[in-house]
Amino acid sequence: MSPVTQLPGKTAENLRKIRAGKPLVHNITNLVVMNFTANVLLATGASPVMAHAAGEVEEMVGLAGSLVLNIGTLTDHWVEAMVLAGRRATALGRPIVLDPVGAGATAMRTAAARRILAETRVSVVRGNASEVLSLGDAGEAGRGVDAVHTVDAAVAVAGRLATSLHTTLAVTGEVDLVTDGRRMVRITNGHPLMTAVTGTGCSATAVIGAFLAVDPDPLSAAATGLACFGIAGEMAAETAAGPGSFMISLLDALFNLRPEEAAERSRFSAG
Amino acid sequence: MSPVTQLPGKTAENLRKIRAGKPLVHNITNLVVMNFTANVLLATGASPVMAHAAGEVEEMVGLAGSLVLNIGTLTDHWVEAMVLAGRRATALGRPIVLDPVGAGATAMRTAAARRILAETRVSVVRGNASEVLSLGDAGEAGRGVDAVHTVDAAVAVAGRLATSLHTTLAVTGEVDLVTDGRRMVRITNGHPLMTAVTGTGCSATAVIGAFLAVDPDPLSAAATGLACFGIAGEMAAETAAGPGSFMISLLDALFNLRPEEAAERSRFSAG
Amino acid sequence: MSPVTQLPGKTAENLRKIRAGKPLVHNITNLVVMNFTANVLLATGASPVMAHAAGEVEEMVGLAGSLVLNIGTLTDHWVEAMVLAGRRATALGRPIVLDPVGAGATAMRTAAARRILAETRVSVVRGNASEVLSLGDAGEAGRGVDAVHTVDAAVAVAGRLATSLHTTLAVTGEVDLVTDGRRMVRITNGHPLMTAVTGTGCSATAVIGAFLAVDPDPLSAAATGLACFGIAGEMAAETAAGPGSFMISLLDALFNLRPEEAAERSRFSAG
Repeated sequence: MSPVTQLPGKTAENLRKIRAGKPLVHNITNLVVMNFTANVLLATGASPVMAHAAGEVEEMVGLAGSLVLNIGTLTDHWVEAMVLAGRRATALGRPIVLDPVGAGATAMRTAAARRILAETRVSVVRGNASEVLSLGDAGEAGRGVDAVHTVDAAVAVAGRLATSLHTTLAVTGEVDLVTDGRRMVRITNGHPLMTAVTGTGCSATAVIGAFLAVDPDPLSAAATGLACFGIAGEMAAETAAGPGSFMISLLDALFNLRPEEAAERSRFSAG
Repeated sequence: MSPVTQLPGKTAENLRKIRAGKPLVHNITNLVVMNFTANVLLATGASPVMAHAAGEVEEMVGLAGSLVLNIGTLTDHWVEAMVLAGRRATALGRPIVLDPVGAGATAMRTAAARRILAETRVSVVRGNASEVLSLGDAGEAGRGVDAVHTVDAAVAVAGRLATSLHTTLAVTGEVDLVTDGRRMVRITNGHPLMTAVTGTGCSATAVIGAFLAVDPDPLSAAATGLACFGIAGEMAAETAAGPGSFMISLLDALFNLRPEEAAERSRFSAG
Repeated sequence: MSPVTQLPGKTAENLRKIRAGKPLVHNITNLVVMNFTANVLLATGASPVMAHAAGEVEEMVGLAGSLVLNIGTLTDHWVEAMVLAGRRATALGRPIVLDPVGAGATAMRTAAARRILAETRVSVVRGNASEVLSLGDAGEAGRGVDAVHTVDAAVAVAGRLATSLHTTLAVTGEVDLVTDGRRMVRITNGHPLMTAVTGTGCSATAVIGAFLAVDPDPLSAAATGLACFGIAGEMAAETAAGPGSFMISLLDALFNLRPEEAAERSRFSAG
């Protein structure tokens, strides 16, 4: 059975496991999205905790089911904390998802993302095409955080990059692409209003973190997490009058999303 | 007259005083909840200010009616600022409310909460049972920020702990418990959806800060503040479709809550 | 033709340019309002980025159309980053808008705002009357962030202060006043509910940042930006049940605001 045909059922199963186990997801994330991300994780069914002090991140990640690293408002201190937590997570076998926000836009961001990839074992990297592509040797220069949304531009190199980085890449945009170098899946759930709210990409990353806490396969964790988040976006868009009411309805929709409904509405296709 | 029978009237009186005086509430709080907390304080009628630089916290707390300390995303620098502000507040006789977020979960958090309690005069500590219990000598290990919600588990030791810590404890959960070691009050307002939104506990702490600015009795300030916040939660839940619309309606409900309505809907009972 | 009669048309023109060009607005702003500010900028049509590390702010501002500096939760490190970014923006000719949150309330804030004004070329300062007046030699002591809302108290000295500071002042309150020392405009759009939501002043500053990225005249950029933001507030208030639903509807209204509608509803008058 191919991964694609298994994924709708896996979507329901993962969502059920999160609701039942309420896994603790440790986030070291950016200042802009902390509140929304925490609410997205709660609505999904997980237990978010935000902690970034060097003096506690290793202890905290030991309590957690997964670790979310996001460099959106990075400083040297925060990157050190991410590496500390990431090394500990690696030693403990806890899955890590990395959001390389703005990688490619400034040298500091590209270097931080590459350092985290080099010094910890990252299960999934979630970013837009320009961010993800900047992690390779032939990194493209970006024009800000959300500059490039062309998934197609990334397909050609994504598989090769996943292999060389020894990780799973989740490249999101109009269509989402997940690949571990060997397998490739597209997810076509979601809605354009998601780009009109800050932190939807970062929240997708956090949702993948929750799914990684219950699913040992990074590819299916990323794909099913993105499907659930995208479905909630579709449901929210049905009544939203703009980005404000959309982001509120997105939380309501995630909270009310039934596992079987998630399976039915999920749209996966081979890469 | 027992404290319990006085509390409904006190609820209305305190809310009226906050609306009339708009007390400045100085918050040194966590990065996740700053925005929501500030909006909760504004909706209650208070004037929030957030300031954490060592270079200004002593001056800022001198302008304020009360001080809110919250260790939810603590670092060494932030704890130093909390102690600096707390000492100054103590010297000036300004009430302090402490939210020991995650105390018991990591050693750094437990130590920070205990240090603040030792070096400043804290009027009220607001936390869940596991957080509050971790402040005693027989601190129980927690499993994250919101691990233990059993108020009953805390009742037996809460009174003794309040006495030994020379403070008032507000232990919140399905039922809220407030005790200063001599008196004990239960508040049964609130709604389960409050646990589905991040920062509701922290916001309850901030609301207690606003009530402390107008009520010199920590027990009645904490109890009446928790009642008002819980009532707003009940009202919000009447129309909410999920946690997103709930948190928005909570702000609307707090803003529109009439003092006499707060008195009528408050539910206090002897501890 | 006086500036006032040109401003409605300019309002529509600027809004169209923002929607078409999606200028990157670099924010070094406070922890309380980052999320709301980013969503306000997105709803306006701009592309927000938040970055405050000394190691990247100069590179980031080089990618941006304008720079927003806001001292609402300042520390020494953040002020250094603001000055670094501001100097680079000055060298590159990128417009800067400064929000001196709480200037006048603590010495640290007043000093930081004055230092930024001295060491960078600030195109617009947006604040309430007490904050703006504290920047002059005869600075008045404030009583917190939102202490003085009397625009009239500021009119007499605002023109002289703008001239001596070589900048444009946008003093907001019940009526907004914009002056560059030579010209003076009043904007009477807006709604009282705006004062019940945290970060509306800071968001007005960020909106001015977006308008500065497309309009080389600081006076018309500030006036037209404030008009658009005020109009969105008026539209949001039509259906809001309180400050929670108001802030959500404000984002929806900004997002849906048509340029010709903005021109029609704008209310400018000579100073």
